[in-house]
Amino acid sequence: MEIIRSKANTSVKEAKKLHQKKHRTSSYLIEGWHLLEEAQKAGAKIEQVFVVEELADRVADLPKVKVVSPEILQDLADSPSPQGVVAQIGLPTLDLPEQLRGRYLVLEDVQDPGNVGTMIRTADAAAYDGVFMSDKSADIYSMKVLRSMQGSHFHLPVYRQPMSDILEFLRKNQVEILATTLSSQSVDYKQVRPQGSFALVMGNEGQGISEQVVTAADQLVHISMPGQAESLNVAVAAGILVFSFI
Amino acid sequence: MEIIRSKANTSVKEAKKLHQKKHRTSSYLIEGWHLLEEAQKAGAKIEQVFVVEELADRVADLPKVKVVSPEILQDLADSPSPQGVVAQIGLPTLDLPEQLRGRYLVLEDVQDPGNVGTMIRTADAAAYDGVFMSDKSADIYSMKVLRSMQGSHFHLPVYRQPMSDILEFLRKNQVEILATTLSSQSVDYKQVRPQGSFALVMGNEGQGISEQVVTAADQLVHISMPGQAESLNVAVAAGILVFSFI
Repeated sequence: MEIIRSKANTSVKEAKKLHQKKHRTSSYLIEGWHLLEEAQKAGAKIEQVFVVEELADRVADLPKVKVVSPEILQDLADSPSPQGVVAQIGLPTLDLPEQLRGRYLVLEDVQDPGNVGTMIRTADAAAYDGVFMSDKSADIYSMKVLRSMQGSHFHLPVYRQPMSDILEFLRKNQVEILATTLSSQSVDYKQVRPQGSFALVMGNEGQGISEQVVTAADQLVHISMPGQAESLNVAVAAGILVFSFI
Repeated sequence: MEIIRSKANTSVKEAKKLHQKKHRTSSYLIEGWHLLEEAQKAGAKIEQVFVVEELADRVADLPKVKVVSPEILQDLADSPSPQGVVAQIGLPTLDLPEQLRGRYLVLEDVQDPGNVGTMIRTADAAAYDGVFMSDKSADIYSMKVLRSMQGSHFHLPVYRQPMSDILEFLRKNQVEILATTLSSQSVDYKQVRPQGSFALVMGNEGQGISEQVVTAADQLVHISMPGQAESLNVAVAAGILVFSFI
């Protein structure tokens, strides 16, 4: 095990760059024991591990372990309580499957990292087969998204594509497209029972779904709200729909 | 209209103190036009309004309007985009009702401001009759909670009490207590159809509900999760249950 005493150490400086999306071309950082265990279970490529001295025994079997001070670890982490461990993980390459069968969640330009992570975690909890996200959605490898996602990207594939490609791919595979609107000029979700493969599209927090999604959709769906709130948080709406359709 | 040019102005300094809970004994701050409109619609006591010059016309009818620079407004606000207006609102006094009838959401020690605000917004959207929250939950008058709550506290009563008092009050009024657990040793929510008045209790993010809630509950409820995620975000779980029970 290497011991690093300075924030100016090259490994530390290079790893810290991974906080910025532009540097996440081949790897990303995770923090905390839960995510590290999930990465191991999933067979993800663990490139290096930064750990504080008193917890170093727990990662003795992992490659390239670097013992650092609590200050350096805090610097590498994003949250106030990183639990003494930060690991650098190789970005997976994920090709679109040949065929698409099952239940999918689609995020169109969802911006808030907490919402994106929570929605992928919800799709995972409900045993959906995968998540598609438009290339204008929040990056799932930011530490904020990773924290709210709680390792779900290790459980189900998350495909990132331009929205038009996603829609074309869904239609080519005859996957029913259910798109969520705020308009009550659509079907209430309680009347919807998808029969075969389907994809549930959730839109941007402010704008909702785009015109191209409205056009491509087989069914527009809304959640009837008897109360006074004008809308639901998008992750809550996704939770209601995702669990309603299983 | 008064014009304030200095951050050292007494009104500005006093208002800024309201960012801290200990100073929110008789009033709190809201930011943005949506919340201000909701406050007006609800007849809330608007104590003073800080606004940037070019938008001052929009609040000409309101009491104690103070025109401030964008820098001072930013200082009074909490978010990066306060939309040019911050208002000081009188804290309502809210007595427990004589009798309790209807549908209630109960938050036990929910800590994350975004979760608390989102859950109250969800209860509002579903036309629940009120929210009870334990005195160890996040304060609803912090600007973070207010932002995610989107004015729902103007639509339905939110009672803050020690948890034991809440439970006693619910039982005295013969309101059925449905408490959410992570354990599958309880009833799946799809089997639950509350008949009369009920209260749905959601627990703390890490610990779930307490032993005293387990003991007081008429029914323990869980959400069956066929997938690999170990749990759902508490606001998502609340959304699924709140809408399932209407």
